[in-house]
Amino acid sequence: MPAVRPLRGKRAAPRRSPPAPRAYTLREITARLGGEVVAGAACRVHAVAPLERAGAGEIAVASQPRQLEQLGATRAAAVVVPPALRAGTAGPCIVTDNPYAYFARLLTLLHPEPAVRAGVHRGAVIEPGAKIARSASIGPRAVIGRGAVIGACARVAAGCVVGAGVNIGAHTRLYPNVTVYPGCTLGDRVIVHSGVVIGADGFGHAPADGVWIKIPQIGGVTIGDDVEIGANTAIDRGTLGDTLIEAGVKLDNLIQIGHNVRIGAHTAIAGCVAIAGSTQIGKHCRIGGASAISGHLVIADGVTISGGTTVVKSIDTAGVYTSLPPLLPHREWQRNTVRMRQLERLVERIAALEMRLAREGTER
Amino acid sequence: MPAVRPLRGKRAAPRRSPPAPRAYTLREITARLGGEVVAGAACRVHAVAPLERAGAGEIAVASQPRQLEQLGATRAAAVVVPPALRAGTAGPCIVTDNPYAYFARLLTLLHPEPAVRAGVHRGAVIEPGAKIARSASIGPRAVIGRGAVIGACARVAAGCVVGAGVNIGAHTRLYPNVTVYPGCTLGDRVIVHSGVVIGADGFGHAPADGVWIKIPQIGGVTIGDDVEIGANTAIDRGTLGDTLIEAGVKLDNLIQIGHNVRIGAHTAIAGCVAIAGSTQIGKHCRIGGASAISGHLVIADGVTISGGTTVVKSIDTAGVYTSLPPLLPHREWQRNTVRMRQLERLVERIAALEMRLAREGTER
Amino acid sequence: MPAVRPLRGKRAAPRRSPPAPRAYTLREITARLGGEVVAGAACRVHAVAPLERAGAGEIAVASQPRQLEQLGATRAAAVVVPPALRAGTAGPCIVTDNPYAYFARLLTLLHPEPAVRAGVHRGAVIEPGAKIARSASIGPRAVIGRGAVIGACARVAAGCVVGAGVNIGAHTRLYPNVTVYPGCTLGDRVIVHSGVVIGADGFGHAPADGVWIKIPQIGGVTIGDDVEIGANTAIDRGTLGDTLIEAGVKLDNLIQIGHNVRIGAHTAIAGCVAIAGSTQIGKHCRIGGASAISGHLVIADGVTISGGTTVVKSIDTAGVYTSLPPLLPHREWQRNTVRMRQLERLVERIAALEMRLAREGTER
Repeated sequence: MPAVRPLRGKRAAPRRSPPAPRAYTLREITARLGGEVVAGAACRVHAVAPLERAGAGEIAVASQPRQLEQLGATRAAAVVVPPALRAGTAGPCIVTDNPYAYFARLLTLLHPEPAVRAGVHRGAVIEPGAKIARSASIGPRAVIGRGAVIGACARVAAGCVVGAGVNIGAHTRLYPNVTVYPGCTLGDRVIVHSGVVIGADGFGHAPADGVWIKIPQIGGVTIGDDVEIGANTAIDRGTLGDTLIEAGVKLDNLIQIGHNVRIGAHTAIAGCVAIAGSTQIGKHCRIGGASAISGHLVIADGVTISGGTTVVKSIDTAGVYTSLPPLLPHREWQRNTVRMRQLERLVERIAALEMRLAREGTER
Repeated sequence: MPAVRPLRGKRAAPRRSPPAPRAYTLREITARLGGEVVAGAACRVHAVAPLERAGAGEIAVASQPRQLEQLGATRAAAVVVPPALRAGTAGPCIVTDNPYAYFARLLTLLHPEPAVRAGVHRGAVIEPGAKIARSASIGPRAVIGRGAVIGACARVAAGCVVGAGVNIGAHTRLYPNVTVYPGCTLGDRVIVHSGVVIGADGFGHAPADGVWIKIPQIGGVTIGDDVEIGANTAIDRGTLGDTLIEAGVKLDNLIQIGHNVRIGAHTAIAGCVAIAGSTQIGKHCRIGGASAISGHLVIADGVTISGGTTVVKSIDTAGVYTSLPPLLPHREWQRNTVRMRQLERLVERIAALEMRLAREGTER
Repeated sequence: MPAVRPLRGKRAAPRRSPPAPRAYTLREITARLGGEVVAGAACRVHAVAPLERAGAGEIAVASQPRQLEQLGATRAAAVVVPPALRAGTAGPCIVTDNPYAYFARLLTLLHPEPAVRAGVHRGAVIEPGAKIARSASIGPRAVIGRGAVIGACARVAAGCVVGAGVNIGAHTRLYPNVTVYPGCTLGDRVIVHSGVVIGADGFGHAPADGVWIKIPQIGGVTIGDDVEIGANTAIDRGTLGDTLIEAGVKLDNLIQIGHNVRIGAHTAIAGCVAIAGSTQIGKHCRIGGASAISGHLVIADGVTISGGTTVVKSIDTAGVYTSLPPLLPHREWQRNTVRMRQLERLVERIAALEMRLAREGTER
């Protein structure tokens, strides 16, 4: 039996960002991304790194007041800060109103992904009638079904299976081993991570004589532009109409979207969330991880659901909603949970006391 | 940076059902599916659509009393109703006792799936000793392991990996990118959606000297006839015997079935449910989405578990069981949760009041 | 419509363990695995089976005092017991301090996996610059990206996609249809089950003007030696540094590990757990199934989290922690849950009673 060794030191070390292809001066950066250079316009950086690890040639981003101390101590060649932290550094610095979004843009600029060659890998299987843009890239072992349309600059990676009649928009990217069932539509610039399944049958079964009769699901799935879908998430096809993910929605990993669901534009849903069939989620909602939303509900725009929360009723007002039992040391929980199931009895005891005192008050 | 556009209008429009290959008169329909034509026996329909969207040539189903108004206003060419709604329509109409099951059968009749050509795709890999029925269909890039048996009319889609010695029954269908580990058995007419993993090792590790020693899992998985398994669900193989999914069980997406579990016939389990090892679920149970059931429990036949519920004890009586904290606006929840962890203290305060009043009662 | 039949009898029967290639005497077994033969050193066994099912030529393991009766009744050719159960059997017997770990080792000895032929299947795609050890095995349709390194005796099964620059250690095993994104590192003897996705982008999006801007995730994933990862689990890559799974960690199925998370050595996590970004879990923790841990938390070494528990605060002391509402029959739950959301009101009523009695006490 091989000995179990702790993680080897060389692996535990935090990986350096991959080298960026070129360096930019702060002046060049603000010309592309906006923001104001308040010092060191000629300072040249080639990589983004965290404040506490950044060094020569690296630029770091501070966004929170609590990072003031780290900001003072950083060895980064340059920093990006909001106006409120401007006084926290004397070195090369860019000021911006939204440093977190700036962080996103800086990473995109300094750490671009390697270019992908257009074309169909000779190991791919393209069925008759599929239309693939010349600028698209189809990886080894991908299968593109009859009549599917793959848009300009789209990328379908190794092992993906794209069903008959699927429509994939421009610049949309399927990572390896994604499955899209026939007849689904993905917009432009959609990102689909590995293991995602789009368009499997919704969970529809009619009870009859003690068994279940399958309800064929003849609807589809429509996914708007700029949606991102995390690894191993599943989005079921609709029963008669389409399950609908509107533009700009961000879905994390291992999410279940039931049939006929509609997710409003720019809503973000964290990992392991379950959304049951026919529920409608509004726009600009934020759904915390590991939460669950029952079927046939309507959730208003701008609702935030805390992680781990279960929602069994519609919500018609924006705001933050939570349903979580308290976390307790186990023994304490054991005692507490006994009480939790006796609440009705406690209420009766309080009511009895109140009645008795009321009676005594009258008697006296 | 590309502008983020809302979902384009043409995509947001509800997709029409794909055209059905042929039309049927109501008389032809009831001859095949049962039910009674009460008007319009010669009326011809070619597609199923929802009451509120159905039009010329389309048939719609109403099953609930609350649909009475929609029923009156529908433009469907014909409707299917239960006896209680018979008076709600004057046009072509079929009456049936179980309209929901009728809906399932109508969809199967009017929207049949395209036929699949039997045979092994030249891009598939068939290992020595595998036996594949002549009427079966093996898709591109599928891998069929040594000694596996694929039954009559079975379909193994692109990218599936079927392990050595696996037995797949007649008319069973594996959607793309399913993995079945060696030695597992699937019955007849089983439907397995993409991303499903059947027969991975159960989670068995023995602690020894601060590390975990893997317990090899030498059992298998046996899946009965007419089971359906949703996308990305995982069913682990047993330690010594088989994990067992009995006939007619319906599993939704992203479900975890631990090793040595037994799910009784015709039980339905919604998405994202976790069932830990060695638990036995009865027949005809309904397990709500995102619920969790601990290991080594026995759940009786006919039990319904509400969505989001956690079960840590066996249940020996049929009925509906729930464990959910209330959903509250977050600030209210914050105050409430403090109280939830102080229940013991509340009980003490009530008891003190009761004792004091009892004492006073005696004193007086 | 085909009739729905119950699981056929021949399938419901518990599957016998596959035949072992050879038999061992108890003397040979203890020479290899330790323990003490107390009777029947020459007794020969060829398979492991459960106490209640074991027969001729089979060895069974009893580890719990509650198995004493089964131990007395077993038809196993030999048994393995802890010292406390030594008196429970008169037949061939091995005594060991850790029978559960012995069970693991016995299974490994008596039921070895079939050997795998080294080499690259002709249906695999090996991109330029990938280095594959001669003793490694690459299955049909696997794709190995540019510059990836596959260690000695490693096995990459059918349909796996290993990204550019990935480093896979010696004796590490990827089951079919696993995806590893570019730049990730797996240690030695790692086991990765089907459907696992390692290195997809972390869920990072910055809000700006009502839409989300993607934060490129340029970190990676580092997985230590002897880690096992269950089916369809997803481990996201870090934003700037690496998501880190230390040596000996055991992850069950359908687990979500967010970006920048660190899981300490020898921690075991059961199925369907969600761990949000940047959280650090200590060493030797046990996380129960279907639990959820919020982001940016620190969980101490040696913490046990009960199944179904949600953790929203850091935990700095080893111990067992639980957050679960009680399971109730549904009608009882309905009444109880009304009370649960009225706790604040109950406290006010108790306080009012206390004040009144205090006042009366003073008055009298």
